[in-house]
Amino acid sequence: MYQARIYITLRESVLDPQGTAVRKALDAMGYDNVKDVRIGRYLLVDIDTDDKSLAESQAHDMCKKLLANPVIEDYKLEIVKLG
Amino acid sequence: MYQARIYITLRESVLDPQGTAVRKALDAMGYDNVKDVRIGRYLLVDIDTDDKSLAESQAHDMCKKLLANPVIEDYKLEIVKLG
Repeated sequence: MYQARIYITLRESVLDPQGTAVRKALDAMGYDNVKDVRIGRYLLVDIDTDDKSLAESQAHDMCKKLLANPVIEDYKLEIVKLG
Repeated sequence: MYQARIYITLRESVLDPQGTAVRKALDAMGYDNVKDVRIGRYLLVDIDTDDKSLAESQAHDMCKKLLANPVIEDYKLEIVKLG
């Protein structure tokens, strides 16, 4: 069993209003040295296979087809053996 | 300038209906060896300081006070030097 750990972020050119709201909230709490906040998604996908390279290629496929939106998002992933 | 990379996940005991929906969607697309999907958040927080340990303690404070919900979520973080 392998686990794909997938990090999905908005592309740099895309505005992140949720991140801006969090930055402003932190600023109001006194964290005025926080210059930028970007909010992405973190997915843990458990893939039942003994073939690490298969798990990796499946995870990339899943990102391209369903999990990430390539128009506005970038992703990276790592494959970790479970158990 | 340091960047806090914060990974927030639901605790294991907490149901993740969004993750379940994604697992079912993947299954319907033919990825029937995907056994579990958990969906969390991935935050990038840029902190303007030259003091790595200050950035780290601030990031932990921010997680506890605002960014993560300790009742249902766990978080981990790493501090990376920018630029």
